[in-house]
Amino acid sequence: MYCVGLMSGTSLDGIDAALVKISGYGLDTHVELIEFDTYKIPLEIKDEIKKACLNNSPSTALICSLNFKLGYLFSDAVKNICKKTNISTDELEFVATHGQTIYHIPKSIENYISSTLQIGEPSIIAYENNVKVISNFRTMDMAAGGEGAPLVPYSEFILYGVRGENIALQNIGGIGNVTVIPAVKDMREIYAFDTGPGNMMIDEACSKLFGVSYDENGDIAKSGKLCETLMEELKSHPYIDLKPPKTTGREDFGEQFVNDILEKYKNIPSEDIITTFTEYTAYTIVENYRKFILPNIKLNKVIIGGGGAHNKTLVSLIQKGLENVKVFTQDELGFSSDAKEAIAFAILGNETLNCSCSNVPTATGAKENVVLGNITLPPRGKNNF
Amino acid sequence: MYCVGLMSGTSLDGIDAALVKISGYGLDTHVELIEFDTYKIPLEIKDEIKKACLNNSPSTALICSLNFKLGYLFSDAVKNICKKTNISTDELEFVATHGQTIYHIPKSIENYISSTLQIGEPSIIAYENNVKVISNFRTMDMAAGGEGAPLVPYSEFILYGVRGENIALQNIGGIGNVTVIPAVKDMREIYAFDTGPGNMMIDEACSKLFGVSYDENGDIAKSGKLCETLMEELKSHPYIDLKPPKTTGREDFGEQFVNDILEKYKNIPSEDIITTFTEYTAYTIVENYRKFILPNIKLNKVIIGGGGAHNKTLVSLIQKGLENVKVFTQDELGFSSDAKEAIAFAILGNETLNCSCSNVPTATGAKENVVLGNITLPPRGKNNF
Repeated sequence: MYCVGLMSGTSLDGIDAALVKISGYGLDTHVELIEFDTYKIPLEIKDEIKKACLNNSPSTALICSLNFKLGYLFSDAVKNICKKTNISTDELEFVATHGQTIYHIPKSIENYISSTLQIGEPSIIAYENNVKVISNFRTMDMAAGGEGAPLVPYSEFILYGVRGENIALQNIGGIGNVTVIPAVKDMREIYAFDTGPGNMMIDEACSKLFGVSYDENGDIAKSGKLCETLMEELKSHPYIDLKPPKTTGREDFGEQFVNDILEKYKNIPSEDIITTFTEYTAYTIVENYRKFILPNIKLNKVIIGGGGAHNKTLVSLIQKGLENVKVFTQDELGFSSDAKEAIAFAILGNETLNCSCSNVPTATGAKENVVLGNITLPPRGKNNF
Repeated sequence: MYCVGLMSGTSLDGIDAALVKISGYGLDTHVELIEFDTYKIPLEIKDEIKKACLNNSPSTALICSLNFKLGYLFSDAVKNICKKTNISTDELEFVATHGQTIYHIPKSIENYISSTLQIGEPSIIAYENNVKVISNFRTMDMAAGGEGAPLVPYSEFILYGVRGENIALQNIGGIGNVTVIPAVKDMREIYAFDTGPGNMMIDEACSKLFGVSYDENGDIAKSGKLCETLMEELKSHPYIDLKPPKTTGREDFGEQFVNDILEKYKNIPSEDIITTFTEYTAYTIVENYRKFILPNIKLNKVIIGGGGAHNKTLVSLIQKGLENVKVFTQDELGFSSDAKEAIAFAILGNETLNCSCSNVPTATGAKENVVLGNITLPPRGKNNF
């Protein structure tokens, strides 16, 4: 059957839509990617999302309205990805949508309890496409004591596992996260965690300093010099030393964090900022591997996915840091790096419809396996009058 | 089968929990109320809700965290109502929860699109009670072009309809709303709308001026005098003259609105404020009937439900205003007035599980009948490893 997986990450670089053919579930899942595309988020909505993520400026009205606006945007992504193929939305069995994270509190702090907030109203997607929608995947893992992230490990196990090798899958979206899949065919041996910033700091600085949304190929980073003082200050961020499972987000490494740095270091050349942010991002990944992965397991491969896989400077810095492990990008191995997370949510939606658990407790810290997400039924049901 | 309906209204006077035995669906629904109770909302959470509803002060972190906190509170309400009976939560087929409305934009305005936001995380309720949860009932009606409210008319038709009389059901919660059910057995003839403030203004003023959460029996209102100047100012509020379908909420008649009035009229006696608010609340109801109901239909009965049915001064003012119609309270007719909305959501949840449409387009303004709500499955599903 056909379904669409939707992902819109913290990097705000677009709405990923994967049209997928899927059958079976659990270890018997068969997945085939039919079509993939990324749809731009209009600038005014991007601004509203950023405002909603900044802790102190948004209004409740903004969040209320933005939840519905994103619903329409996600809905258009479904229509557009179907239009690219011969498959009509009527043929879709379901849409699985991650939503847009506007806040994430991995551990209770002061008056706030651990919780997460994704928006992009599923009723709108369901109504506009007359289709079943599965959404809100992170909350049930948190109800079970987990951090609600990362959720990709389940799909990575299904897609990449069972190959007789110890592999690490490093995703570099807005945030960086890693999934370690040991050669043994046992999901309990998987673990995963957020390594720290992915493209978030680099993209934010590129936008502020160069008016571009990202550092294509890593060319800007290649042209600058490392600023040691800034690097030392970044290295003092406490996140990297935290023991996994751990998760992070825009509230740690987003606009506020970057703005403060740009203000403080406004006298150093702009390209040096990008170089240093890129070195730091590579450092956070390598350092997490050194501290929390390599002491336990001999990795055969590191496979890099997500938008950051296109940043050649970043990838080569990671390879340099992990001298004894071979680093590949997903695309080098024949998997679509860009489609990875959207496919992951199609897989997770399929599990939910089969009443099948799909969190990986060793990755999220949850007490147990649980069924993730809410189901919104197709709107045109039985009519009683 | 057993289920629990949960309602927490804009008046913040507690979480209503109705344990209900239900079978069939649509016009064949049979409902029996087993147990009902209202659970207090702790003061600090009440304050957080009020903060979340005030448009400019809340943080995204607050909303994120409060969504989960309310999930735990609703979850406790389910546990407690079951504990009051011999029925264990394991015997529940489902929980249907309205959630706490923190914002509602019935019609698009400026940069905000029509939308609604209820919180109280269903995954928490599902996990804590290992039960299926239906939630988020209002969004699909809005996706279909409706205002997302009122939703009680469907259940009122099922509970009170088919009696050969033209009746108006006037609910007085935080907000007042009316459902007109004509004698003919056709749901398309039903209409409903929010009449304006219910207990909201009275309660807010009671809390600020007398340190009590509501005006018991309407005794304070009985003791004061009408302030004509204030009454004239209140009557100039544009909501009453709006043509139905129409909805309103805390953003129109809540804390901000009341505070402005109390500041402006701080020199008149406190009990006169309560008297005038009570007269105004009765006026909004009577005036809406005169303008939008009585010209079209000869009412046999007005049945008053919700907390405001206990306010004798308010009820007698309404009877006085509607001289030729007999006014009853729900309890006078043998129905639990307090349990009404919680039972309504149990009925709506049951419709959703039967893929049955349960909005009333003539009440909400929706373009068509749709299936309402999201389904969160019991968390302990199949385990793949």
